[in-house]
Amino acid sequence: MTDVRCIASDVKLGHNVRLAPFINLYGCEIGDEAKIGAFVEIQKNASVGARCKISSHTFICEGVTIEDNAFVGHGVVFINDTYPQATTADGHLESDKDWVLERTRVKKGASIGSGATILSNVTIGEHALVGAGSVVTADVSPNTIVVDNPAIVSLPMFPGLILIPQRRVASHIFEFVASEAPASLA
Amino acid sequence: MTDVRCIASDVKLGHNVRLAPFINLYGCEIGDEAKIGAFVEIQKNASVGARCKISSHTFICEGVTIEDNAFVGHGVVFINDTYPQATTADGHLESDKDWVLERTRVKKGASIGSGATILSNVTIGEHALVGAGSVVTADVSPNTIVVDNPAIVSLPMFPGLILIPQRRVASHIFEFVASEAPASLA
Amino acid sequence: MTDVRCIASDVKLGHNVRLAPFINLYGCEIGDEAKIGAFVEIQKNASVGARCKISSHTFICEGVTIEDNAFVGHGVVFINDTYPQATTADGHLESDKDWVLERTRVKKGASIGSGATILSNVTIGEHALVGAGSVVTADVSPNTIVVDNPAIVSLPMFPGLILIPQRRVASHIFEFVASEAPASLA
Repeated sequence: MTDVRCIASDVKLGHNVRLAPFINLYGCEIGDEAKIGAFVEIQKNASVGARCKISSHTFICEGVTIEDNAFVGHGVVFINDTYPQATTADGHLESDKDWVLERTRVKKGASIGSGATILSNVTIGEHALVGAGSVVTADVSPNTIVVDNPAIVSLPMFPGLILIPQRRVASHIFEFVASEAPASLA
Repeated sequence: MTDVRCIASDVKLGHNVRLAPFINLYGCEIGDEAKIGAFVEIQKNASVGARCKISSHTFICEGVTIEDNAFVGHGVVFINDTYPQATTADGHLESDKDWVLERTRVKKGASIGSGATILSNVTIGEHALVGAGSVVTADVSPNTIVVDNPAIVSLPMFPGLILIPQRRVASHIFEFVASEAPASLA
Repeated sequence: MTDVRCIASDVKLGHNVRLAPFINLYGCEIGDEAKIGAFVEIQKNASVGARCKISSHTFICEGVTIEDNAFVGHGVVFINDTYPQATTADGHLESDKDWVLERTRVKKGASIGSGATILSNVTIGEHALVGAGSVVTADVSPNTIVVDNPAIVSLPMFPGLILIPQRRVASHIFEFVASEAPASLA
């Protein structure tokens, strides 16, 4: 077994960083005692603080700052472009000049559950917890848990049905039955 | 091309196991004739049964038991800690002593669709099917499909709108509060 | 560092294709000037058009056709079998003869956001945009954005609650409109 890590020469590694096999790092900064799991990619101009744990299969893109003591689960995906495209309007490959970097910050001691997707232009507050599988589309307040949906309520007049309260914080997936929508909603 | 698999010496491999490139296995047990896809990590104290298919990009953590003949799709993430943290309250790296392992069991012949996230403390029943992209937050009964959401209904007085029925079993993106649904919605 | 790409001899690569480390390609076709990110797997009988960008951690399965100039984000998962199984009813490993391939087409210039799951038997129209973290279960029209959910509406008689309009197209995660929820629901 040969070395199976791709770590570019411009990566700044702190002291006692632990690196799993099969990682791809370039142009980023990793703080002291951080742990980086297998199959992780961290791009240029991203930073990971001291004592962070970045779990396997996670992608940290340019523009993401993860402060000290934060936990990022497995298969977490960050985003830095709301309207990504492969090519410009004239059909040429998009380059760094053709888009504006959108930033994301994960504050000290926050935890992001596995399988979460974190949209850009978002701050996740100190010691907040993002539940596994969540899709975060807005800021998460400090010390807040956004997991499943504890805020689901039921209406007594429609037993067995639930409505979803509006929330400031993250969102969720669910699915639509294909059917005819009135024109006013389509 | 050199060998591109990381398989620790403590891994117990059955007969005729098929291993794709770029896998990271340690301290786990894999049954006879199982197939493990590329970019898969399987941790210590996890077990995969005979004839299972574990597809690419999937993460199987400590505490997960997958029984014989089960299918796990691509990019599936298991979880073993509901409130994960990188560091303890006093700011030191969390160690194995600082958390309690939560277990998950996938029973014989079950299928988990690609992109699913499986929370911990869950059993997925025999021959159940978890739909692609689902987030499973509670037990799934045997022979049950939790995929999309066939139980979505519309209210005649609000044409074009749908409400989400509560359901006993989890599935999906969100956990429905366990309660009795009217027969017409079940 | 040795070569860390697995590219089978039957892969057809166009001109000036850019390949990241840790990729696993076999039996597929990649067009001119396409970019393939780290930890990507592309299976046999899949094709990627010219100038496409396929981002890290993405899985493209047999039966997927991605036309020219399309963008596929990080951690995107395609599917080609609605009811996957590891074994046949008599308990033997499933082979290619035991299932029917379901196809997916991503049309020219479309963009698929990171973390999306794309079910099979789906066409994503030209220049459509699938939002990050979405689960696409039906065709997406050309030039359409299926992201978050701009179509979410609220009922004046239930302030703080929202209802979800039915739609023809895919599904979501959707973003709850940021607004003040009544204290009883917060």
